[in-house]
Amino acid sequence: MRIHSYFIGLLLALACGLAGAQGTATWIWSPGDFEIWLSNRMQAQRVERDVAWPPFWRLYGHQPQVNFMRQVDLAGPEDIDVAAEGIYNVAIDGRFVHGDQRHIRIPAGRHTLNIQVYNAASPPAVFVQGRTIRSDASWTAGPRPGAPAGAAGHWNFDTPDNPPSRFRLPTREILPAAVTRGNGTVLVDFGRETTGFVTLKNLAGSGQVTLYYGESKEEALSEAGAETLDRFTLAGHHGDYMALTSRAMRYVNIRFDAGLRVGDVALAYEYLPVAHRGEFKSSDDELNRIWDVAQRTLELNTREFFIDGAKRDHWVWSGDAVQTYLMNYYTFFDGDAVKRTTWALRGADPVDMHINTILDYSLYWFIGIRDYYQYTGDADFVRSVYPRMVSLMDFVLARRDGNGMLEGLPGDWVFVDWADMPKDGELAVIQLLFARSLEAMADCAALAHDDAKAATYRQLGADLKTRIMAAFWDPQRQLFIHGRKDGNTNPLVTRHPNMFALMFGYLDDAQAAAVRRNVLTNDAVPKITTPYMRFYELAALAESGQQRYVTGQIKDYWGGMLRAGATCFWEQYDPNVDGAARYAMYGKPFGMSLCHAWGASPLYLLGKYYLGVKPTQPGYAAYVVEPDLGGLKWITGKVPTPHGDIAVYADAATIRVTGILGQGVLRFTSATAPRSDGGTIRKVGERRYELPLEGGKTYLVTRRE
Amino acid sequence: MRIHSYFIGLLLALACGLAGAQGTATWIWSPGDFEIWLSNRMQAQRVERDVAWPPFWRLYGHQPQVNFMRQVDLAGPEDIDVAAEGIYNVAIDGRFVHGDQRHIRIPAGRHTLNIQVYNAASPPAVFVQGRTIRSDASWTAGPRPGAPAGAAGHWNFDTPDNPPSRFRLPTREILPAAVTRGNGTVLVDFGRETTGFVTLKNLAGSGQVTLYYGESKEEALSEAGAETLDRFTLAGHHGDYMALTSRAMRYVNIRFDAGLRVGDVALAYEYLPVAHRGEFKSSDDELNRIWDVAQRTLELNTREFFIDGAKRDHWVWSGDAVQTYLMNYYTFFDGDAVKRTTWALRGADPVDMHINTILDYSLYWFIGIRDYYQYTGDADFVRSVYPRMVSLMDFVLARRDGNGMLEGLPGDWVFVDWADMPKDGELAVIQLLFARSLEAMADCAALAHDDAKAATYRQLGADLKTRIMAAFWDPQRQLFIHGRKDGNTNPLVTRHPNMFALMFGYLDDAQAAAVRRNVLTNDAVPKITTPYMRFYELAALAESGQQRYVTGQIKDYWGGMLRAGATCFWEQYDPNVDGAARYAMYGKPFGMSLCHAWGASPLYLLGKYYLGVKPTQPGYAAYVVEPDLGGLKWITGKVPTPHGDIAVYADAATIRVTGILGQGVLRFTSATAPRSDGGTIRKVGERRYELPLEGGKTYLVTRRE
Repeated sequence: MRIHSYFIGLLLALACGLAGAQGTATWIWSPGDFEIWLSNRMQAQRVERDVAWPPFWRLYGHQPQVNFMRQVDLAGPEDIDVAAEGIYNVAIDGRFVHGDQRHIRIPAGRHTLNIQVYNAASPPAVFVQGRTIRSDASWTAGPRPGAPAGAAGHWNFDTPDNPPSRFRLPTREILPAAVTRGNGTVLVDFGRETTGFVTLKNLAGSGQVTLYYGESKEEALSEAGAETLDRFTLAGHHGDYMALTSRAMRYVNIRFDAGLRVGDVALAYEYLPVAHRGEFKSSDDELNRIWDVAQRTLELNTREFFIDGAKRDHWVWSGDAVQTYLMNYYTFFDGDAVKRTTWALRGADPVDMHINTILDYSLYWFIGIRDYYQYTGDADFVRSVYPRMVSLMDFVLARRDGNGMLEGLPGDWVFVDWADMPKDGELAVIQLLFARSLEAMADCAALAHDDAKAATYRQLGADLKTRIMAAFWDPQRQLFIHGRKDGNTNPLVTRHPNMFALMFGYLDDAQAAAVRRNVLTNDAVPKITTPYMRFYELAALAESGQQRYVTGQIKDYWGGMLRAGATCFWEQYDPNVDGAARYAMYGKPFGMSLCHAWGASPLYLLGKYYLGVKPTQPGYAAYVVEPDLGGLKWITGKVPTPHGDIAVYADAATIRVTGILGQGVLRFTSATAPRSDGGTIRKVGERRYELPLEGGKTYLVTRRE
Repeated sequence: MRIHSYFIGLLLALACGLAGAQGTATWIWSPGDFEIWLSNRMQAQRVERDVAWPPFWRLYGHQPQVNFMRQVDLAGPEDIDVAAEGIYNVAIDGRFVHGDQRHIRIPAGRHTLNIQVYNAASPPAVFVQGRTIRSDASWTAGPRPGAPAGAAGHWNFDTPDNPPSRFRLPTREILPAAVTRGNGTVLVDFGRETTGFVTLKNLAGSGQVTLYYGESKEEALSEAGAETLDRFTLAGHHGDYMALTSRAMRYVNIRFDAGLRVGDVALAYEYLPVAHRGEFKSSDDELNRIWDVAQRTLELNTREFFIDGAKRDHWVWSGDAVQTYLMNYYTFFDGDAVKRTTWALRGADPVDMHINTILDYSLYWFIGIRDYYQYTGDADFVRSVYPRMVSLMDFVLARRDGNGMLEGLPGDWVFVDWADMPKDGELAVIQLLFARSLEAMADCAALAHDDAKAATYRQLGADLKTRIMAAFWDPQRQLFIHGRKDGNTNPLVTRHPNMFALMFGYLDDAQAAAVRRNVLTNDAVPKITTPYMRFYELAALAESGQQRYVTGQIKDYWGGMLRAGATCFWEQYDPNVDGAARYAMYGKPFGMSLCHAWGASPLYLLGKYYLGVKPTQPGYAAYVVEPDLGGLKWITGKVPTPHGDIAVYADAATIRVTGILGQGVLRFTSATAPRSDGGTIRKVGERRYELPLEGGKTYLVTRRE
């Protein structure tokens, strides 16, 4: 087993972005700097029609000066090439290098290299290429020489002429599905939701052009109502013209002055290259279409960062992000996107507000890091971001009330859900998220070798769970009540605390059964109406083995959107509303996002609870495969992991699984004694069986469901 | 007296930079942002020959997003013009303004205006011009809507087309005093120390040019030793060429390739416009030249900020700055330069190092703010910077040892003086500066209406003074000993704690007399050799009435530099060293700065202790004039104040004073009964008299010294 673990560790290191440390030079910066800078740039592009709308929360800047340091021990002298973004100097053992600062000879022996870079406009960054000395995560980055410094941040800027500040997402041209020309107008339909720079080919003449973007045709045609538009004026123009800003749309309504002629229209589709690793197919074609459209939805929202919506807000929201992380683990497995988003959400120090100003969104942020570690096993990232976890948790802890609980203080937004419910005082759901955050902190503190804080967080979490049960668990009704204000409990029952407690594993079997019975499957408890919280509700139901019910819910809700013509999943969907009225939200006729990341949750549900794949040790060092047909005739698919994809097929009579390196186990039910073509099946309960899986092998199990 | 105070308040408000609030629109930003950004830019220009040398301490950035807010109450609708540096939007009562964002009509009535600006590269700033609504200090600036916000920062950017990011010091052309041409060389002497962009007129041809700058001729001619140089390569150039960077020099040695011809050479002299308000003349011509050269020295170091030296470091150092502030109050009275320097030194939050990394430099920073308030009465600035005072003091307080005292911790630089003395453990001088800092904090907290913290700081200061006396005052020897380490006192006597205790007024009359006798005038106590600490030593001596001795010291030390050819005062001067060896420092042949701000201290000494003018209430609401001839036949001069200049003439027989608005009092000695042509002279002691001064009036007193 030892050699096993060793290989897993190696693979994890390779998979989790440490490639830079293995021999390739890459641009490095102070961790978080590039991500903060880029997220500011991206988020500041939001508009509401002709009004710029940067985020309303505090934005942090990158550090204008960074000191990069590395110890070397050279058998012989070595020449290095240095490139930097900013004013810089190089010091060897504390002495400046004079003369050529780009080509430097490091003498043989042990030396300390320092490169100090100043850059006010974009993150200080360096690229160093030598035979053995290369800029990568083996360098540290700190605010000044001698100050505490962590491993340098990096991504995929692997050539000296491709520095971080020039980052742009790639584009490729796509053509319209339909073009309708009128007098001074062109209406273009790209056939489905997309994102990019509208390009007017052979645009000639002088005058003003306005692009009204629409996720729906109605929006594009509503010149008074379209949420996004771009306007530009040309004089004596000849040739192609590309809009300056990438926008989301399915349609674009182009209006131009009489002095202009417009040729063809195309789109420079702007995208983050992702690997389509996750797969899902089943006997239900509608469900398959739902999976495909969900993947498209997630892909359009997986960009510089995980954003909430392609059109709106095009911002990074923590509550949305923590869900997209989980969907991502069952589709693209893009760990870099999770890391970038985590840095961007957090910003820098000092902390004087919750993430996105929302109390619950600070808490999700901690949980998202713990989730990331569970799926990727990337402890280096946890160690890198840990200091900012501590400072945010310090902020949170300082805001506890006399009961050691969190309630919304002046300036805090307590969101939970768009649902109509009391949000003041101590909400049970907030305390559960807080407890989970403290557990996440304890785990991450241990990874960062901060044992004292690990113990403190662990104890705080345990104490809080005790207080939660005492305050909010109703022993008579066997469920969690909603909250408490000024010492008075509110007997209202909401699904939110009950489903989180269930998902977090905070309940014993009897309590869990009671919650399922008394709340989750009780129609007398107000329904959850937002896809945002349905994510957790359906996950909690699936966690309780209610896949068959979940299948119906997915086909009903997401299938309903498809039947209403959706090409991506929406921010919100009410089957009782018809026509263009469906697109209204926030008091605006086209306020709703028609490509919203949280609408893609079937990706997670189908991967985790139907294909049934989940890590049981960080980074899939151990994992289970527990297929569940959920009422379908057959299901098949792949789930990506750091060690390759786990392939699953299941029907009532057979299960076929290809495992990965790691301690896998297949769990399944059978009414009769099952058989397999490899390994040894163990009976673990009534109708319940387990088969240990060996890496890279394919197992065929026959059973009777 | 009431009406008096009212006028003083009004004048103070006008004098102290609130002009912006009185009717002129000016560019505004979040306080400190512009100053931090500009100081980074300035300090990053330092070079050591061909190596960039930005500061080695942590640099902070500006906030990339700022929300500007103002409440208005309009009798009728008002049109405003808006300019901004960055992406921005305007909201009236929380609702975005659509359409034209530059020309906006505000409806009649009470409204809240918010302008949110995002700018990654330079400080977010706005300029608003309406009939009654104008951007000025009546606006607040904060990191986001609804967050705590302070009065907006501003300076003198009073037109919309002159935004802060385009700031440059003005220049004017000056011509050389002497030009020596050689083969491929031109040696230019500008006649005295100066700063600017070297301009090569009618430069023609192709090839490389190198400018070797020298504060001395020897430095300029030492191509291997000159501390600063600039190199550029031209191809087919025709016309004037101006160097890209402003440098300090008296000489520039221009070396150029054979393919180039160089015409005339000039300098675009770069300077901060200052008012030469302070004046001093006496019966001693040498002293008068010293005053003139000191003023020139201070002027060359009064720029974007108060810097330490024109050539080197061209950085902002807190210990140097706090002295230049005091010199400035007796010459230019440029309050804006003090404010800019204070912001630049402090940077932003979080605090994880001492200012300039130096323990004592954090302490001087607090004291400098209290001094600024004493001289200007500008409480608005104190309130603006107060939050950053608190966070720095929090950092300091967290670093106290078990005795409540400060000692150098790992990463701290304990500077005190270049002198050879123990600097580890608890130094008496550091604790005295700490006590003074706590008193400054208490005063500033009171101005910021933070009464709880004011009381805390007051108590901490009082406790610390008690501990200082118990630990470091030697009752037998009647003096302060140097320090204590690991509980063991060091009986060493240094001048430093003794002179600070005297200056801070921490001693009773008997103790003060003992310190003067046992330390300050005791040749057995090691001499102070740096002009940096001589500032305080001579001030303490003058504070004790030793002006006659001080006159000799000034003529000896500063007169010595003049006799050695100085055109500005040096970083250090040892009369025992001759020739070019005088210019060596830090192990480098021309490492020394020949125009160093701390060399200008006679400005302060002569203004405060000879002309004898000092505020006794903040902003010269009350002041004394206490002329002291210091052995000279006559002295005359002017001292600037917020309410105009105080003019003083004194000789042994007469004193003539023109007072300012404020409660002034002339104090003088006379062996016989004095007379005056106005007011009523009171006898206040043996040979000691006082005459109350009325604003704007001139008094002639006859006496016999």
